[in-house]
Amino acid sequence: MRLSQYFMPIMRDMPKEAEIISHQLMLRAGLVRQSSSGIYSWLPAGHRVLRKISEIVREEQDRAGAIEMLMPTIQSADLWIESGRYDDYGKEMLRITDRHGRDMLYGPTNEELITQIFRDGVSSYRDLPRNLYHIQWKFRDEVRPRFGVMRGREFLMKDAYSFDLSVEDARRAYYRMFTAYLRTFARMGLRSIPMAADTGPIGGKLSHEFIILADTGESEVFCHADLLEMDTPDIETDFDGDLEQVFNAWTAKYAATEEMHDAARFEKEVPETKRISARGIEVGHIFNFGQKYSEAMNCRVQGPDGKLITLEMGSYGIGVSRLLGAIIEASHDENGIIWPLSVAPFHVGLVNLKSGDSVTDTACEALYADLTSSGIEVLYDDSDNRAGAKFAAMDLIGLPYQVVVGPRGLQDGNVEIRTRAGGEQQTMDIAAAKTYLNEKIRDGLTVQ
Amino acid sequence: MRLSQYFMPIMRDMPKEAEIISHQLMLRAGLVRQSSSGIYSWLPAGHRVLRKISEIVREEQDRAGAIEMLMPTIQSADLWIESGRYDDYGKEMLRITDRHGRDMLYGPTNEELITQIFRDGVSSYRDLPRNLYHIQWKFRDEVRPRFGVMRGREFLMKDAYSFDLSVEDARRAYYRMFTAYLRTFARMGLRSIPMAADTGPIGGKLSHEFIILADTGESEVFCHADLLEMDTPDIETDFDGDLEQVFNAWTAKYAATEEMHDAARFEKEVPETKRISARGIEVGHIFNFGQKYSEAMNCRVQGPDGKLITLEMGSYGIGVSRLLGAIIEASHDENGIIWPLSVAPFHVGLVNLKSGDSVTDTACEALYADLTSSGIEVLYDDSDNRAGAKFAAMDLIGLPYQVVVGPRGLQDGNVEIRTRAGGEQQTMDIAAAKTYLNEKIRDGLTVQ
Repeated sequence: MRLSQYFMPIMRDMPKEAEIISHQLMLRAGLVRQSSSGIYSWLPAGHRVLRKISEIVREEQDRAGAIEMLMPTIQSADLWIESGRYDDYGKEMLRITDRHGRDMLYGPTNEELITQIFRDGVSSYRDLPRNLYHIQWKFRDEVRPRFGVMRGREFLMKDAYSFDLSVEDARRAYYRMFTAYLRTFARMGLRSIPMAADTGPIGGKLSHEFIILADTGESEVFCHADLLEMDTPDIETDFDGDLEQVFNAWTAKYAATEEMHDAARFEKEVPETKRISARGIEVGHIFNFGQKYSEAMNCRVQGPDGKLITLEMGSYGIGVSRLLGAIIEASHDENGIIWPLSVAPFHVGLVNLKSGDSVTDTACEALYADLTSSGIEVLYDDSDNRAGAKFAAMDLIGLPYQVVVGPRGLQDGNVEIRTRAGGEQQTMDIAAAKTYLNEKIRDGLTVQ
Repeated sequence: MRLSQYFMPIMRDMPKEAEIISHQLMLRAGLVRQSSSGIYSWLPAGHRVLRKISEIVREEQDRAGAIEMLMPTIQSADLWIESGRYDDYGKEMLRITDRHGRDMLYGPTNEELITQIFRDGVSSYRDLPRNLYHIQWKFRDEVRPRFGVMRGREFLMKDAYSFDLSVEDARRAYYRMFTAYLRTFARMGLRSIPMAADTGPIGGKLSHEFIILADTGESEVFCHADLLEMDTPDIETDFDGDLEQVFNAWTAKYAATEEMHDAARFEKEVPETKRISARGIEVGHIFNFGQKYSEAMNCRVQGPDGKLITLEMGSYGIGVSRLLGAIIEASHDENGIIWPLSVAPFHVGLVNLKSGDSVTDTACEALYADLTSSGIEVLYDDSDNRAGAKFAAMDLIGLPYQVVVGPRGLQDGNVEIRTRAGGEQQTMDIAAAKTYLNEKIRDGLTVQ
């Protein structure tokens, strides 16, 4: 993409309304714009990141055997009255009356709707187990939206729902999502820590939040330092196999959110040098809530003996739009964002140091065409801005690699490659630069 | 995908609430379920089609130089008051009051919001031209939703918005979208006819609807028969070049919707044997509306001479979710849907005639693994249903190719391949079947 034909309005000044760094950087780098309180438009570069995050979530859900579908944003209030939750949500639920006076709402979550769909579509034990998910916009009418996309009102969420015949099967479904979540966040360059969590209005007993440590996190969390070094389940993981050991390994060490924290246990179980008390950002939340909805909504199937079985359920959420903020909170420096390769809006920023100079322009055009044709996503700054402004913008938007092309280097056939993370700078000839970038990017995008 | 692990609830009986064939078939084939009046959930197979249609739309928008972004579903009423359209939309606009008593709405379209974003992000003539689009859910509170996804209340739409410095540039932007639309619908197996159209509440003078002929179309249309045989602009089309000739060729012959129909002109310009008077389904609508919004909302940039230029705008819609219905209306028979390969939920349906028979199971598993590993999307009916039921289900869901594997054919090493469109049946050995399917599907998916 040529910057001269793109739409990425960079802000030079610090936006006053933004309290935290990710919100500031998302505004300054032209990723989002607020359209009304807690509601954002995703500008092209921000939208590219949102799509990549969604795609990683999708791939890992699919790998774990979940099946994608899509439920609508607007729901009828009737279902929520049936489940008994219509009043629980209070003012956070955006309530709507349609032209015929019917009570509707903008879905904050989908337990009721998926239970209805599943109940109506399945009647035999042979159709179990299933896990259905979607990636859809939700709305929660927060009293005080803040922190940009981290606590917006309209937000993109992946929510999956599992249906099983027995408590044991439902635990296996829970382990599959637990494992998929560890992989999902790791692929975005994040170290997530599953923590015993409160279940809130969703209900149930078994629940974990997946937490990213960051100074600006919304809540205090406590965990054993070894959890920062645990191995993430790799691509060979068999989701049809027994994942209880993954679950056990990751839950053997102390980790809890503020609501579930037990200071005495923390001090007893965790050696002093291993005690981490930090701020955390919730990026995922999984629940096993048994028969709460299937009982209330009569979601049953016929068993092998002809008797009705009330299904065991769970739900599994990932805050897709919130992840942009979380990744930036976890990965930035004083100059701007440092995108992990897997979710970067582009892989490479190509900086033309002297637009209008025919030798430089020709070299840039050739490099742009070559890299693009080999599948590398290049943002080519072909503008006539000053070099300093171009460097500052590239650092701000945080693409993993920058290729700097100028007349002086070209005299020796050289360009400069800068790595955004770490700031490494290397001078090499154009052929070597192409080989280097192709290898780095291919390796970096290989799913482990 | 194995049918035994999928979620595609087939309905045997004709759903009473469905008036038209596409709605009936989408319900029966397990593609969608109504969640409330005019609001649908997309079950896994329907969602796959929706994604493929979206992806074709996206590719052709990108090819034409439009840039993807994403605006939210919920908007503030303020913007619509600024443009003067808040009252125009009447009861079709879903109006919402948030917890703080602010007037909001579920966007039925996005001219106001994109004009605000563009106005705030761009200040110089050098940042023009631009075309920004998104694929997002919209809501129109139809008084009487009907025809399934063809006239739903919550629907998925691609809307693009062009910004130009002059009337001439804006016409070129219009031609690019005009050309992209011809390609987009053709890639879905549809013959679309651009027809001079009324502009309605969007405004402006230059406008075309893209119409698919179908007996169940919502409106009467009139056109020259030659338009059914015109060549679609191919992949070599240069979107940076002059597309006026494409526009002229496609608009030289008479074509008009009911509102714009001029019977005298129709009879004068079109020879009697070439007069087509038929029902049509609108799948796209493009508008050039000049300065209607840029004037009202002060969307201006500085020109080369420092003077302010009020921008020329256009908007360009495609009914993405409606297209599923339109494609089925245009492509079905008495047994079910006939999906064009490019949007089929799966390419191949693999029918195991004797699940549980080890020879047949082994052959099916090997074929399933082979085809899948070569990138072919296979729905494998591994259930223990009767052969007749399996055939009926496969015809109903309408995958382009069926591979029928049974013990009798396998004695000679053979399987049967059926083509859903046309019903051709061929017996061949397994190696030949694999080669045949690979070639057919690769060729069929090559973008022309």
